[in-house]
Amino acid sequence: MQQSATQAYQEYIENNQTRFVEELCNLIRIPSISTDKSYAKDVHQAAEFLKNELIKLGADKVEICPTAGYPIVYGEKMVNPTLPTVLVYGHYDVQPADPLELWTSPPFEPRIADGYIYARGACDDKGQMFMHVKAFEVMMKTGNLACNVKFMLEGEEEIGSVNLETFCKANKDRLKADVILISDTSMIANDVPSITAGLRGLSYLEVEVTSPNRDLHSGLYGGAVANPINILCQMIASLHDENNHITVKGFYDKVVELSAAERAEMAKAPFDLEAYKKALDLTEIHGEKGYTTLERASIRPTLDVNGIWGGYTGQGAKTVIPSKAYAKISMRLVPNQVSSEISDLFQKHFESIAPASVKVKVTAHHGGEPVVTPTDSVAYKAAEMAYNATFGKKPIPQRGGGSIPIVAMFKKELGIDTVLMGFGLDSDAIHSPNEKFGLFNFKRGIETIPLFYKYFAELKK
Amino acid sequence: MQQSATQAYQEYIENNQTRFVEELCNLIRIPSISTDKSYAKDVHQAAEFLKNELIKLGADKVEICPTAGYPIVYGEKMVNPTLPTVLVYGHYDVQPADPLELWTSPPFEPRIADGYIYARGACDDKGQMFMHVKAFEVMMKTGNLACNVKFMLEGEEEIGSVNLETFCKANKDRLKADVILISDTSMIANDVPSITAGLRGLSYLEVEVTSPNRDLHSGLYGGAVANPINILCQMIASLHDENNHITVKGFYDKVVELSAAERAEMAKAPFDLEAYKKALDLTEIHGEKGYTTLERASIRPTLDVNGIWGGYTGQGAKTVIPSKAYAKISMRLVPNQVSSEISDLFQKHFESIAPASVKVKVTAHHGGEPVVTPTDSVAYKAAEMAYNATFGKKPIPQRGGGSIPIVAMFKKELGIDTVLMGFGLDSDAIHSPNEKFGLFNFKRGIETIPLFYKYFAELKK
Repeated sequence: MQQSATQAYQEYIENNQTRFVEELCNLIRIPSISTDKSYAKDVHQAAEFLKNELIKLGADKVEICPTAGYPIVYGEKMVNPTLPTVLVYGHYDVQPADPLELWTSPPFEPRIADGYIYARGACDDKGQMFMHVKAFEVMMKTGNLACNVKFMLEGEEEIGSVNLETFCKANKDRLKADVILISDTSMIANDVPSITAGLRGLSYLEVEVTSPNRDLHSGLYGGAVANPINILCQMIASLHDENNHITVKGFYDKVVELSAAERAEMAKAPFDLEAYKKALDLTEIHGEKGYTTLERASIRPTLDVNGIWGGYTGQGAKTVIPSKAYAKISMRLVPNQVSSEISDLFQKHFESIAPASVKVKVTAHHGGEPVVTPTDSVAYKAAEMAYNATFGKKPIPQRGGGSIPIVAMFKKELGIDTVLMGFGLDSDAIHSPNEKFGLFNFKRGIETIPLFYKYFAELKK
Repeated sequence: MQQSATQAYQEYIENNQTRFVEELCNLIRIPSISTDKSYAKDVHQAAEFLKNELIKLGADKVEICPTAGYPIVYGEKMVNPTLPTVLVYGHYDVQPADPLELWTSPPFEPRIADGYIYARGACDDKGQMFMHVKAFEVMMKTGNLACNVKFMLEGEEEIGSVNLETFCKANKDRLKADVILISDTSMIANDVPSITAGLRGLSYLEVEVTSPNRDLHSGLYGGAVANPINILCQMIASLHDENNHITVKGFYDKVVELSAAERAEMAKAPFDLEAYKKALDLTEIHGEKGYTTLERASIRPTLDVNGIWGGYTGQGAKTVIPSKAYAKISMRLVPNQVSSEISDLFQKHFESIAPASVKVKVTAHHGGEPVVTPTDSVAYKAAEMAYNATFGKKPIPQRGGGSIPIVAMFKKELGIDTVLMGFGLDSDAIHSPNEKFGLFNFKRGIETIPLFYKYFAELKK
């Protein structure tokens, strides 16, 4: 039966893959940007789309569960109480598309070219999340659903999953499962499959520096009044030292340093620095002294300005000293840093370095905890077998640089471990113009996921 | 006859001042923002308005003179070749109005309240320039035009008077005059009249810092790729040292230091530091070590960031490392700094401090030369007498912090000295939201200008 299940999956996928892509494109066309309130209707429409899809595929108890923000789409298929249960998490909201002028084609009109779907959300996370919906279809339509399954699809991941914890706390019974599956990370390469085994956390803050109470003419006041942009730049510059260490007091106190052996193991992952530089057109590499590029992007905490603005930014020239200057600043965290603690440390530090000539306001946005997922679990083993079957290679466990703060929260609130079955690539340009997702990757995900269910059920027997 | 001329002026002004204000408001309603091409039609309309006004008042040879950019409105009244000739310069273009949300009333719908006209251009320079047009009306209608007069009103002052020099070179004969009058500066206070006797020059540049060739996800790449915003902040921060001296190599080489005696003379100008801080809501004063606030704002060169932008600046959070970050940076110059030299020094310096991990592009916008106007001339004496007559006080000669680069250009190309008869106040918020101009100041200007003509003609006899 097992051999025939795999064959049945494969046949069904081959016969329906074109439609799967079309359906994904329909979902992508909904500009469900959660951070911008003017798209609220679209975010709700994306939830509606997924509800209808789950109902159509035969899921039970499908429901758009309201939260204080955007809703969570829930649905389940309980085949047999003796089988293990898989809880699928994904998100249907997307990042803003700007800067719009850098897109080759409109961000919400998916364009298929060179084997990719180009669109905002193509990969993050509509493409990756929809693989699970279509894998569910494959298993349902071929009569081979090997595990019970539950879907929990949210619309606030890009704004910090602000209401997900409350939902989990209130629905502990409904969300009971043996493993959580998330596809919202990347692999090393299409011929180097990998499973993310650790993720960085996040602290995200906004700062405002105020000097005069109104915009001033730089001729009349220049030199005599603190310019909030100059001051903000000085404050930001001081957040790194000459070795690119972060100067926020206490920032590194809880950082777990990897052993030499662990670092040596990491260094075995295939990585071509010249190719990396070339792909991003970097003239020179940059980062914290004493660490490699791969380490800087995964096991080391960071501080980046994600946005800055102040004064006149239009065409031409305006000789103004603005009243205020602003920046959005985020820090990626590693075990055992704690997001709220780091946000507090940052706020105290930033306030302490402000010169007497300005006023400073620091506001914390969302955060999330760093996490390391187990690689010795039954679920990880099942994922490894599934990748091995479809890619012909054992996947490499990899520490990722991004943040999925909810993984730590799921562990804490639901007591369930997650397997991060990502099928995207770092080059997919998520959060950037011309985001894309490989048709190969979309299909390989739909092929691999049902095998996970199969192996997981077998190993759990 | 002299007494009766003064009386006739005064009577005419009293009888017509309400209409003068209404006419100024009509001019202000035209949003003639020269730096933003979408207002091109309005800039031309403002020129048309002034042409019609000069014709109506009896000026001769009135013409809208085309340039490579916005036109120059010319008109003249040659009463008698034996009389001295006054060349009036002013500009009919205005600064952009943003940030719009900080305006109490719409910037191009003049609002009269508390003795002020609130609007973009109310003071700079429509209000101050229109005083000369109305003073001309006063003299014409009372039959007491004591000098020949020429008007040269341009529409590109806020974008660096880019075509004015060419116009002057091509019209040397037409522009022949004994003095140039400009009202585009401020007085110390309504009860402390002053005449600007020196102005700072300007270098204005735009910088662009590029790191990766596309926006990146800060989780995947944070820490491993140079963030152009962080780098730009570091570069900007390094442009001042701990004493707030500017670090651009060679920047101070040509600066003329004032003597202790000159500085002592300057220090006599009435200035209340606590009132200054309170008016701007400054927690602490800031500037170059070793100089007073008044000196920092007038006789010392400066470097200010007038605008900065990069990354995500919308609502909420976006975890992006942008490809590029930008800033507009201007320097105020003092004698004998040369604008083009300083722009070159800045460009070389900025390129030299860029780390190898980024690419830097520096573009020069407009500039202008610093200038000191003579205080021992007949024209200055006539202005002093005119202010003394209307304010009841001798005006203080004052070094201004702003730039009117054309003053140096007029001297060089036309060989004519300028008297800067400003009637605005620093608190008029020019270039800022809620720009205003006192009805008192507008009227006092119209009263003072005809007296200048009268005294200038008498002293020149």
